[in-house]
Amino acid sequence: MTTTDPTTRRTSNIQALIAPRSVAVVGASGNAAKPGNRILRNIRDGGYQGALYPINPKAGVIEELPAFASVTDVPAEIDLAIIVLARQHVEPALLECVRAGVRAVVVVTAGFAEGDEWGRETQRRLTALADEAGIAAIGPNTLGHVNKEIDFLGSFVPFDTWHDGPVALIAQTGVYAGAVLQELMNRPTQRIGVRFSVDIGNRVGVSEIDLLDEFARRGDIRVVGCYLEQIADMRAFLARAAEVKRDKPVVVLKPGRTQRGARASASHTGAVATDDSILDQLFAQHGIVRAEDNEDFTELLRAFSYCQVPPAGRRVGVITYSGALGSMAVDAVAAAGLSVPDFTSRTLETLGSLMPDWQTPDNPADLWSAAESDPGRAARTCFPAVLADDNIDQFLAVLLAVPNVDFEGIREVFAQMREQRPDVPLHLVMHGALGVRWREELEGLGVLVHTSAREAARAMAMLAWYGEVRDAMPSAHARRGQVSE
Amino acid sequence: MTTTDPTTRRTSNIQALIAPRSVAVVGASGNAAKPGNRILRNIRDGGYQGALYPINPKAGVIEELPAFASVTDVPAEIDLAIIVLARQHVEPALLECVRAGVRAVVVVTAGFAEGDEWGRETQRRLTALADEAGIAAIGPNTLGHVNKEIDFLGSFVPFDTWHDGPVALIAQTGVYAGAVLQELMNRPTQRIGVRFSVDIGNRVGVSEIDLLDEFARRGDIRVVGCYLEQIADMRAFLARAAEVKRDKPVVVLKPGRTQRGARASASHTGAVATDDSILDQLFAQHGIVRAEDNEDFTELLRAFSYCQVPPAGRRVGVITYSGALGSMAVDAVAAAGLSVPDFTSRTLETLGSLMPDWQTPDNPADLWSAAESDPGRAARTCFPAVLADDNIDQFLAVLLAVPNVDFEGIREVFAQMREQRPDVPLHLVMHGALGVRWREELEGLGVLVHTSAREAARAMAMLAWYGEVRDAMPSAHARRGQVSE
Repeated sequence: MTTTDPTTRRTSNIQALIAPRSVAVVGASGNAAKPGNRILRNIRDGGYQGALYPINPKAGVIEELPAFASVTDVPAEIDLAIIVLARQHVEPALLECVRAGVRAVVVVTAGFAEGDEWGRETQRRLTALADEAGIAAIGPNTLGHVNKEIDFLGSFVPFDTWHDGPVALIAQTGVYAGAVLQELMNRPTQRIGVRFSVDIGNRVGVSEIDLLDEFARRGDIRVVGCYLEQIADMRAFLARAAEVKRDKPVVVLKPGRTQRGARASASHTGAVATDDSILDQLFAQHGIVRAEDNEDFTELLRAFSYCQVPPAGRRVGVITYSGALGSMAVDAVAAAGLSVPDFTSRTLETLGSLMPDWQTPDNPADLWSAAESDPGRAARTCFPAVLADDNIDQFLAVLLAVPNVDFEGIREVFAQMREQRPDVPLHLVMHGALGVRWREELEGLGVLVHTSAREAARAMAMLAWYGEVRDAMPSAHARRGQVSE
Repeated sequence: MTTTDPTTRRTSNIQALIAPRSVAVVGASGNAAKPGNRILRNIRDGGYQGALYPINPKAGVIEELPAFASVTDVPAEIDLAIIVLARQHVEPALLECVRAGVRAVVVVTAGFAEGDEWGRETQRRLTALADEAGIAAIGPNTLGHVNKEIDFLGSFVPFDTWHDGPVALIAQTGVYAGAVLQELMNRPTQRIGVRFSVDIGNRVGVSEIDLLDEFARRGDIRVVGCYLEQIADMRAFLARAAEVKRDKPVVVLKPGRTQRGARASASHTGAVATDDSILDQLFAQHGIVRAEDNEDFTELLRAFSYCQVPPAGRRVGVITYSGALGSMAVDAVAAAGLSVPDFTSRTLETLGSLMPDWQTPDNPADLWSAAESDPGRAARTCFPAVLADDNIDQFLAVLLAVPNVDFEGIREVFAQMREQRPDVPLHLVMHGALGVRWREELEGLGVLVHTSAREAARAMAMLAWYGEVRDAMPSAHARRGQVSE
């Protein structure tokens, strides 16, 4: 143990938590059904290159790794201990970690502050123990954490595939983060790359602000997503997030928007409800992107990770292969506070050149007839023409993906458009059976394929909003630290 | 030609349109890229058993069928002629249909009322011609129509699979109906069965009310979905729909909710905008379910076709495998105007018996711990217990579909629940990679699997609303026919 004060030690120990060079799994088991086995296997199978020590009273060999009866028996320094034991054994295990000089701890076990009186009291002692020793601790009631930079998958939910990328997630929950990540990781297309995911659980030590600090200073992280049931220090969080957002968007999902939802949330992590409409205002004032629900959260993370630069504004150029879908897309766009400007005469001329005589080009541009007579030509001519229009800030195509308008080379069209104006987000909605193939062909280009015009409009509006508030300082009121919780 | 008056003839000829015994494709072509070839092949490949006559000036043989130079050359009665020619040839073709005594006509060709002055004038003449002859006509600018009862797929969009069922669609649009249908038909799970789809296009003759009458009286149709850009006779439509909804729900999607969307809609089918907020009120007063957009439309059709009886009310029992997802589900449910009541003590007792000591059962019931220790037992015990609770009208489970809680027999659990209380809609949201398999296992049971809690809440609210308004008569005001357009 070092002699620096506990707070300084804890700050430096956050590195040991996030990027451990050695890991002990306390409660490792040979029984494949037990969480203590799952975590061990997930770390090993994930390709982690650091030292890995199973800890089990019976020692022996677990999953082909030599096991130890206690962390104090391990003949090397342990950066991180993951405790996955029945709840009554957690405190003794933490005491052994303190004795062994372990720098960071994850308490996976549930049944503490979110449970009964015994759980709440014990969690208070765990907090005090970790604080005193300067241990960087997360949990109890956590999925664990992941750092793809070092292929560390410290979670009891398995992830067969992991897509690395510029997103960092901070979660305060039990298994939710795992569900979200599993969904993201199992997407065959429209993938979201996640480098870090840390579930702070019942927040026994390391807080969302500690992690926001960590991800703010990392150049490899472009978007920070937070799922928070309760924000521990609202004033500090808002101030820090308002600074961070000048460099990268901070997207927050906080449940308990309704009274009954807040009650459910309280019973889940022992969080106390904040007035939700006040929170909405505070987030907006500080330039924090607030997600509406789970699906909105992942869609916004995707939008921000695909669009490195926020768009210049709210003017949308719309292309459609169906007048009906075009009308509905315009409804969705207008309802989201975006505009559908007139195209320049140059754009109208190009569009008109491929339309039948009786059709008048407009925004939205209905290309059905043009595409039906020559699908490739319609796309190669009209898509870039709309994208080049000076009146538009974002591009939306609502296409029928049906055989009548199929063509080879949709990838090339969009790849060239990305080069043509990298500052303009490209949004796509496809209806029809060919949508699957087209989406596959577009993978990796940063084209946002949405499942509906409403989803597209929401993403467009939030991208534009972030561009508007990005450089704004938090209000003087907030800067003076007078925001009340 | 018969001697009855044209209006009576047209009414009887709607049968020839909907269920033709013989069909001529005017503009049939041997060129696979042409719509006139696609329609012919779709009808033939769909398994239509009636007579099928390709019409082409060169006659000969087209797609292995003997072709005729004109409908007047066909040596048999023609119930239906589908005209798919360049627009300048449509009027002469219709004149030949009149001469040949054809009973119903579909004008596929676009470029009439939605186009230029020539198009508008010509469409007026087409209308007059069809009216005078008593021909039941749809189009111009239509995808065509489908009647799965007789395996008639009269559309230029191909449908490799078609799932028959209790839904009838009425659309007023060009290709939109095809896109919707292609999507529905390509769903591997959560399929929606559609027996009829009729695209009236620019409404040259047969109206949405004619078709509403037709589908109202059919016992095989349980839900009628209408996509309408403009309602021709608002007063009559509202009155008729209000009657029909006492027997089966009428779901209407009408774009142009915003000013810009209405402009786009007008340029699409030449429709004139109605004030949208008034429309909202009128629909609500008459018990017409209004869909918000394309996705909402299909989700509502699915919900109503899966739930034969509307639920008794708005009280939702919620099961979750994640406290976080549970909180968010409750937020979504409450925001949709539904309630999350307390469970009866009997339900709480059953739930509590499988929970760890520190957990207090509640609605939502967080079953993560129970499911992690024995997934099958948790589901077989707790799902039916919540469903049996007298305080609930609808059932919602928001599950983590991850290996930790996987078990065999999810189909049996839900199959028994369907029998246990067939009056209670079963809603399911799944997060995690196993969701695909679980959804497959549940196929055909009528369990509504939603992609988000928000989508589930919307469906629950609209099912409940329909139950509330179903037996209400339209307001006296409306019944007296004094509703203004």
